[in-house]
Amino acid sequence: MPSVFDKTTAVTPDGDGRYAAELDAGWVVGGGLNGGYLLSLMGNAMRAALPGKPDPLVVSAYFLGASAPGAATVEVDVRRSGGSTATVAADLRQGDDTRITVLATFGDLDRNAGDVRTTAQPFELPPIEQCVPNTMAPPEVRRIAPLMDRFDMRFHPDHVGWAVGQPTGEAVMSAWFKLEDDREPDPISLLLVVDALPPVTFNLAKPGWAPTLELTAHVRAKPAPGWLRVRHQSHNVAGGMFEEDCEVWDSAGRLVAQSRQLALLPRPAPEA
Amino acid sequence: MPSVFDKTTAVTPDGDGRYAAELDAGWVVGGGLNGGYLLSLMGNAMRAALPGKPDPLVVSAYFLGASAPGAATVEVDVRRSGGSTATVAADLRQGDDTRITVLATFGDLDRNAGDVRTTAQPFELPPIEQCVPNTMAPPEVRRIAPLMDRFDMRFHPDHVGWAVGQPTGEAVMSAWFKLEDDREPDPISLLLVVDALPPVTFNLAKPGWAPTLELTAHVRAKPAPGWLRVRHQSHNVAGGMFEEDCEVWDSAGRLVAQSRQLALLPRPAPEA
Repeated sequence: MPSVFDKTTAVTPDGDGRYAAELDAGWVVGGGLNGGYLLSLMGNAMRAALPGKPDPLVVSAYFLGASAPGAATVEVDVRRSGGSTATVAADLRQGDDTRITVLATFGDLDRNAGDVRTTAQPFELPPIEQCVPNTMAPPEVRRIAPLMDRFDMRFHPDHVGWAVGQPTGEAVMSAWFKLEDDREPDPISLLLVVDALPPVTFNLAKPGWAPTLELTAHVRAKPAPGWLRVRHQSHNVAGGMFEEDCEVWDSAGRLVAQSRQLALLPRPAPEA
Repeated sequence: MPSVFDKTTAVTPDGDGRYAAELDAGWVVGGGLNGGYLLSLMGNAMRAALPGKPDPLVVSAYFLGASAPGAATVEVDVRRSGGSTATVAADLRQGDDTRITVLATFGDLDRNAGDVRTTAQPFELPPIEQCVPNTMAPPEVRRIAPLMDRFDMRFHPDHVGWAVGQPTGEAVMSAWFKLEDDREPDPISLLLVVDALPPVTFNLAKPGWAPTLELTAHVRAKPAPGWLRVRHQSHNVAGGMFEEDCEVWDSAGRLVAQSRQLALLPRPAPEA
């Protein structure tokens, strides 16, 4: 039985670099589908177009408009192939509209897999049973974020002030993460994981939608089975925008993904 | 009199989203032209294609092959425009070969310019007169890196071990930076600044060329006139690759640009 994640991120070849997909309503958050979910789905299309280069090494996504549940197409254009990596451009389309445009380089993470000279230190998270499950999110949050049912997320108790009306004032959020169905993590699912937590602006008393302009993810290793640890933080809220840095560590203590996004600060009223 | 930077990054409209350029031999480093120089030049083409959106907010560059001095073309395809930002795809071509493919979002950094809630702390650099000028680089370095004459760079004395055969063993490099001709910094020149220092791998006793797969730069504010402070560091050398994070602070103490790249570790012998 394929997992819900695998079923809802599947793509079907539809001729000459084109892949058909059905965007699943279960991944809605607020006014659209979660960007990380869409990147995993696009990742499946890109890897299908690149035999022998199964793993995303780096993916840069520019978000042009919100996606809606229903039919979509991914068009993949191989820009360079040869040697150990390949670079592609890919667009996610619905009807005549491009929702996301991507550049990405794929390769094989099994090459040099044992070479680890990471000096970054893993961040601290209390034991899972002391963390706050997403199932405890307020009903008004769960109603606009059905994607909460797609994974088991256990928040650092010091970072969930936003959920009880007491934002911490610090632009940091961290949690344990596991997909539903005990679907184990892999390089494709890491593209979801780097964009699954609520935006750190929730802890800055700005609970609205923070539209991502751009997100770049580096996938640095195949994750070991089990829970992942995820942390987002921002150090540069300025000019109506903020950068959000994400680290994902696996159960073996390896830094398996890093991402950074540039997003717009939520505004009190909808944009004109 | 235009500065050397302005002259060598100029582009000429050549019909329908196409811009002609002459890549200048003065920006050679090792086997090709400096990537940051090429991004500034591409930045000039992209801004020319986007009236009213003069500033790069975020640029993601995928490097497909080394560029050589001589004629080149930048092709700009506007992917979304409207509202306060616009997103473009752009290719730098020489003959039939694409050297760099880019996605970028442009806007106007004067919007919300006074909104600064940055919590990042500026890093320490000794006073300029106590730092080590790039003119003191060994002759064999200057010979393969004529771009050293395009700017005044004053290295942190603790980070120049690589230049005297004593790599520090730490993946960090920082310096004061100023363009020649006293050309003041602006958002376009920041695209050079984030890729102008030697790779941090020089301090890991790996002095070879470290090919960049991808570089994403966020330009967060118009820099104040004067010297810039630039720092590169890596915390994740693994799997034959490393991430390199860069911060650029201006003379007014503002974090004006952040970038991250994913690069291949230098190898002892050329790749097959």
